[in-house]
Amino acid sequence: MSLDSYLLSEEPRYYPSADEVALYSAAYDMRLPVMLKGPTGCGKTRFVEHMAWKLGKPLVTIACHEDMTASDFVGRYLLGPDGTYWQDGPLTKAVRDGGICYLDEIVEARQDTTVIIHALTDDRRILPLEKKGELIKAHPDFQLVISYNPGYQSVLKDLKESTKQRFCALDFDYPVPEIEADIVASEAGLNLKDAERLTKIAGKSRNLRGQGLDEGASTRMLIHAGRLMTTGLPIAAACQFALIIPITDDPEMRSTLAAAVDACI
Amino acid sequence: MSLDSYLLSEEPRYYPSADEVALYSAAYDMRLPVMLKGPTGCGKTRFVEHMAWKLGKPLVTIACHEDMTASDFVGRYLLGPDGTYWQDGPLTKAVRDGGICYLDEIVEARQDTTVIIHALTDDRRILPLEKKGELIKAHPDFQLVISYNPGYQSVLKDLKESTKQRFCALDFDYPVPEIEADIVASEAGLNLKDAERLTKIAGKSRNLRGQGLDEGASTRMLIHAGRLMTTGLPIAAACQFALIIPITDDPEMRSTLAAAVDACI
Amino acid sequence: MSLDSYLLSEEPRYYPSADEVALYSAAYDMRLPVMLKGPTGCGKTRFVEHMAWKLGKPLVTIACHEDMTASDFVGRYLLGPDGTYWQDGPLTKAVRDGGICYLDEIVEARQDTTVIIHALTDDRRILPLEKKGELIKAHPDFQLVISYNPGYQSVLKDLKESTKQRFCALDFDYPVPEIEADIVASEAGLNLKDAERLTKIAGKSRNLRGQGLDEGASTRMLIHAGRLMTTGLPIAAACQFALIIPITDDPEMRSTLAAAVDACI
Amino acid sequence: MSLDSYLLSEEPRYYPSADEVALYSAAYDMRLPVMLKGPTGCGKTRFVEHMAWKLGKPLVTIACHEDMTASDFVGRYLLGPDGTYWQDGPLTKAVRDGGICYLDEIVEARQDTTVIIHALTDDRRILPLEKKGELIKAHPDFQLVISYNPGYQSVLKDLKESTKQRFCALDFDYPVPEIEADIVASEAGLNLKDAERLTKIAGKSRNLRGQGLDEGASTRMLIHAGRLMTTGLPIAAACQFALIIPITDDPEMRSTLAAAVDACI
Amino acid sequence: MSLDSYLLSEEPRYYPSADEVALYSAAYDMRLPVMLKGPTGCGKTRFVEHMAWKLGKPLVTIACHEDMTASDFVGRYLLGPDGTYWQDGPLTKAVRDGGICYLDEIVEARQDTTVIIHALTDDRRILPLEKKGELIKAHPDFQLVISYNPGYQSVLKDLKESTKQRFCALDFDYPVPEIEADIVASEAGLNLKDAERLTKIAGKSRNLRGQGLDEGASTRMLIHAGRLMTTGLPIAAACQFALIIPITDDPEMRSTLAAAVDACI
Amino acid sequence: MSLDSYLLSEEPRYYPSADEVALYSAAYDMRLPVMLKGPTGCGKTRFVEHMAWKLGKPLVTIACHEDMTASDFVGRYLLGPDGTYWQDGPLTKAVRDGGICYLDEIVEARQDTTVIIHALTDDRRILPLEKKGELIKAHPDFQLVISYNPGYQSVLKDLKESTKQRFCALDFDYPVPEIEADIVASEAGLNLKDAERLTKIAGKSRNLRGQGLDEGASTRMLIHAGRLMTTGLPIAAACQFALIIPITDDPEMRSTLAAAVDACI
Repeated sequence: MSLDSYLLSEEPRYYPSADEVALYSAAYDMRLPVMLKGPTGCGKTRFVEHMAWKLGKPLVTIACHEDMTASDFVGRYLLGPDGTYWQDGPLTKAVRDGGICYLDEIVEARQDTTVIIHALTDDRRILPLEKKGELIKAHPDFQLVISYNPGYQSVLKDLKESTKQRFCALDFDYPVPEIEADIVASEAGLNLKDAERLTKIAGKSRNLRGQGLDEGASTRMLIHAGRLMTTGLPIAAACQFALIIPITDDPEMRSTLAAAVDACI
Repeated sequence: MSLDSYLLSEEPRYYPSADEVALYSAAYDMRLPVMLKGPTGCGKTRFVEHMAWKLGKPLVTIACHEDMTASDFVGRYLLGPDGTYWQDGPLTKAVRDGGICYLDEIVEARQDTTVIIHALTDDRRILPLEKKGELIKAHPDFQLVISYNPGYQSVLKDLKESTKQRFCALDFDYPVPEIEADIVASEAGLNLKDAERLTKIAGKSRNLRGQGLDEGASTRMLIHAGRLMTTGLPIAAACQFALIIPITDDPEMRSTLAAAVDACI
Repeated sequence: MSLDSYLLSEEPRYYPSADEVALYSAAYDMRLPVMLKGPTGCGKTRFVEHMAWKLGKPLVTIACHEDMTASDFVGRYLLGPDGTYWQDGPLTKAVRDGGICYLDEIVEARQDTTVIIHALTDDRRILPLEKKGELIKAHPDFQLVISYNPGYQSVLKDLKESTKQRFCALDFDYPVPEIEADIVASEAGLNLKDAERLTKIAGKSRNLRGQGLDEGASTRMLIHAGRLMTTGLPIAAACQFALIIPITDDPEMRSTLAAAVDACI
Repeated sequence: MSLDSYLLSEEPRYYPSADEVALYSAAYDMRLPVMLKGPTGCGKTRFVEHMAWKLGKPLVTIACHEDMTASDFVGRYLLGPDGTYWQDGPLTKAVRDGGICYLDEIVEARQDTTVIIHALTDDRRILPLEKKGELIKAHPDFQLVISYNPGYQSVLKDLKESTKQRFCALDFDYPVPEIEADIVASEAGLNLKDAERLTKIAGKSRNLRGQGLDEGASTRMLIHAGRLMTTGLPIAAACQFALIIPITDDPEMRSTLAAAVDACI
Repeated sequence: MSLDSYLLSEEPRYYPSADEVALYSAAYDMRLPVMLKGPTGCGKTRFVEHMAWKLGKPLVTIACHEDMTASDFVGRYLLGPDGTYWQDGPLTKAVRDGGICYLDEIVEARQDTTVIIHALTDDRRILPLEKKGELIKAHPDFQLVISYNPGYQSVLKDLKESTKQRFCALDFDYPVPEIEADIVASEAGLNLKDAERLTKIAGKSRNLRGQGLDEGASTRMLIHAGRLMTTGLPIAAACQFALIIPITDDPEMRSTLAAAVDACI
Repeated sequence: MSLDSYLLSEEPRYYPSADEVALYSAAYDMRLPVMLKGPTGCGKTRFVEHMAWKLGKPLVTIACHEDMTASDFVGRYLLGPDGTYWQDGPLTKAVRDGGICYLDEIVEARQDTTVIIHALTDDRRILPLEKKGELIKAHPDFQLVISYNPGYQSVLKDLKESTKQRFCALDFDYPVPEIEADIVASEAGLNLKDAERLTKIAGKSRNLRGQGLDEGASTRMLIHAGRLMTTGLPIAAACQFALIIPITDDPEMRSTLAAAVDACI
């Protein structure tokens, strides 16, 4: 089976925050498409990896961007020694052979891509390959998942109402402090006490969101800082390097964040 | 015949709301082109599937989008071992072999596509393949159908007056509550009482249209919620997952909708 | 001769409103290019078909649109077993072999296409195929005709003054009621009395132009309604389906139009 | 010699209005590039044809437009049985073999084309074929001529100052009435008296320029009207068809022009 | 190994200003991606060359720009005697074979490129070649480094928050005067006294930043002036040529800068 | 050696105005890139030709424009009988074989081209051919020169600060009257007295810059007028043809300039 290389070989660790595993499982049972909503770096990608592993299905992830064309999803004609031949794109592979297809940051893609998936998200479950003149009936195991960061949407770039209504949706956010410290400790190989310090710093940073900071430190950034600390870097230097300088150039905001670090160590 | 795979193998269930079946039949008798107007997820696609099945004609559906070119409709040259050869597009197939061609959300397509269909919609009933230098006279069974959501049109994206005037038009809307509950029960495999609850919730949601909600819950979303309930999810969780979180991120609107759910269960 | 398939096999019925047949004939005698001006669906295309049939010349019609390139008019290189070869476009065919070339809605095309026809519309009567490096002297029978809807032009999309000045021009409008009723009766196969009713309705609809309606019902729409009536549809239903719902979504305007229908039956 | 087909076989009639023939001849002696300035249809193209015939040089005319690329001027690679080969464009042909290259309405072309001609218009007289990696030294007989309609230029579309400064320039305008009547009579095969009437009408029409008319009737339009009159059309009908309806849709302006016609017959 | 040509053959001289070498080393130990922030010409490129040399890893540098496509990074299909074959792009080479990939001025690139690197910058460390249908797991030695000039960012061209959060970040600025003089003397082969004069001039020039100058003289410009002086040019002429005329056309600013030069010599 | 055809066969006459020859020579000794600043037609191109001849190096000139792509500079894949092969662009040739590469009007080019030259203008002196996957170390004789007209720059089209800082820069302007008269006499083959008259006229024309004229007459235009005079044209006619009509259509400005001509003869 051509999707074997998309099977996850080991369990991606995931720390549930509510009933998201049960809800997703119900949607998969009914093969309903699912939308994951939430800020950057809070674990949406990890969650869908976890669910794919749990359900034993291959996971085809497509990171969407503005310059992506419908062909990058569904496939294209290539030129071989006997003329043109068709090559399935990643979405088509998942549809044919029954994988979970995860379209990451779907709003970044051009409108044509969102329309392509419409017939896959209602009861027809078909993918028309217009360029090839083929109509694919989705494999019974196929499911579509998309991610979406509501905070980033502008008027120009938003999902069409007729697209949103095709999905069941789950909210994601950064984990509560106790769970986040566990995650940081475990993912970075750091002691729990230092991980808790990092979590506290993150909390202060997230409170500054909208007051000069576009976003606070994500769980992923805490793990970065934690990893740097395991090489022997002091916590202040690690936080400057991994939590502060990446997200702001404003001297006052940097002082505020540095003070927040000092207060937690 | 090359359109065989476009014949519907089983009857698509359709719940008529007025005389739309008779009107469409009269238009097909005269081979007049038809435009289906109405909001997202209210059953336009299902209706045209139903009519195609009833008339015993193959149905070629094309989901329109901004990046579609005229070639995606009419066909293109491909490169084979003996040089370029022509491949008919889906519209051309329907024109040649006598199918019903359904252009879904036609206004999403670029202007060139709407002009292409002009000569198919007046008494000439021809499709000029300019790139191939061929003039196709439509098969006697061919008919053109388009869908159109008036609520979405902006000044920039609307059908040209000279296009609109070529079509007979039918209005569609969400079904009346009693019929909608029947549909939800039947499509989701849900008991009628729960289906009626969902229909009531949808009514409240649709009343909020224009008061913070772009659109209320569609019939399709009710069916999603209904299917989730058949896996054992409680109605409140199913509504959150399938009816509320997908369409709004505003905390107040979410509370209002959640209260509406509570009031109906 | 390659243009044989563009000869009209039967006479297209045309109902003259003034001296347009004589004027066009004089222009064709002198091989002057002609521009047909008038609203959508009033018979411009039918007129040029009629003249081509009368003059016994093949008619090559090109429906212009924004995404059309100069290559779609004049031709392009294709790839065959021995490398690229040239394929004449529809305009080039008409120029070489002496047809009437009709560019429908010329302003929709990109600027390059209007410039391409310049050397065909003055006394040089040549078509330079720049991509092929060939200069074609037009066949003595060749004539160029364009259509143009003045009501639709915006500042951005208008014919260049230097293009307009190259054409003789004829005005077209909807026929006077008596002639229009004849046309509707004859084209739809309807009795004259019902055709006169439809013509009266059209008159009321056209009076609303600019008062909430972009355009009133065209002759073509009356024929649609007439055809539907021959299948047994009552006049009110046929008018809703073919004359009212296609052109407006405004409830008040729909009532006004429905009242106009009621007053005429 | 590859430019033979660009030699004019018969003398294009030209009616000089001042010393433009002597000035152009001096510029050609020194191989200086020349710019012809003036309104549409006043005889610029005819003048350069006349000069090319007089000097016995082939004339390569390129009608410029927005969608023209540099490749349309200088040439491109095509695919043959042994891979890609280079095909000279019309400008390159004139440069290699010594023709007069006439770029009609140069400002319509994209910026790249005006830059391409820079090295041809100073003392280097070279054409770099960047895509081919070849540097062509212009043939001693080569000359570049461009036309330019100052009335049409917008801020966005004007010649760069560094381009203008490379050309000697000649002004063109409609001929004085006596000469214009001669031209119309001779070109249309019309008697002089009717030609004078048409010239008078043109004068009145040109006085309306800027007062509701973008441009008055050009000499070319008078010739059109004259030709129609030779088929037996009365002067009033010929003027409506060839002088009035093509240039305005405003009912008042049409009346004013019709009155001007009546006053001259 | 295909990256051998990307190994630096001699040590690039680098003058550390703080603990940037230790911080970078810690990030490389953990294979965390790094962002270098700072003004133009202050030594960011030299720093990453130095680190690559120190770590003994090949360095693949990609200068980003607006017209770069994702294919320029990851690779593309080319046409060979047996049809199309895939050619890895520079990023793909570094990912496969374990180099440090340095994306210089990442914000200049189109959005698609920044999304491409997302899966390389979290714990997945994968590069999906969507066009090829291959998923590359990064070589254990691979690391991603980007540069970023915060002073240049506009609202339209900035890194997405979700990209910034994936990197550890280091600030760079021009060196302190004593070190800068050492650098100039050593790189230009100039005596230290003259190098110190140039450094003083640079200081005055940088104070004018925002007061009529977009940026002051960079270290690189001082080295240019120094090199010119070693050919015998007097310091005033060298400064005019290398420090003043390149950065301003304003006569007053030029006088101010010339006075600053005079004051330092 | 492939650049032989780019060696200048005879000395281009150049009339120095200050120490620009010495400064350029010093920059070439150190292989520093040079930027030539000044108005159109004042001799920048001639200067770089002169220096290339003096240094005995081949000169590869590239006239930049908006539609130029990076491939036009560095090269591209072409299709031959054995599939695609690489063809070096003009910049790549100069880099490989040691020529002086002159990018004329660099700001006209797209951003990608200016970024391509960055690694050639610092001490790395490399040209990465990203599409080919090759890194070229510049030939020891290679030097980069660009021209730049500060008067034309808009906010949208200016060199990036990080590009400007990589170049030594020289100012150019029209020569002083005595030298300009010598140049005109010598280049046009005109007697000195008439050349002085032309120079005086140019002076008056340049004083009108900004008062209705975008630019005054350039030295190149004086040479054009001078050449026309050697064919026997009187000075007034030659000035109208070569100095006045090309640069303005304003009747008052034309009178002012004509009066200036009269005053000088």
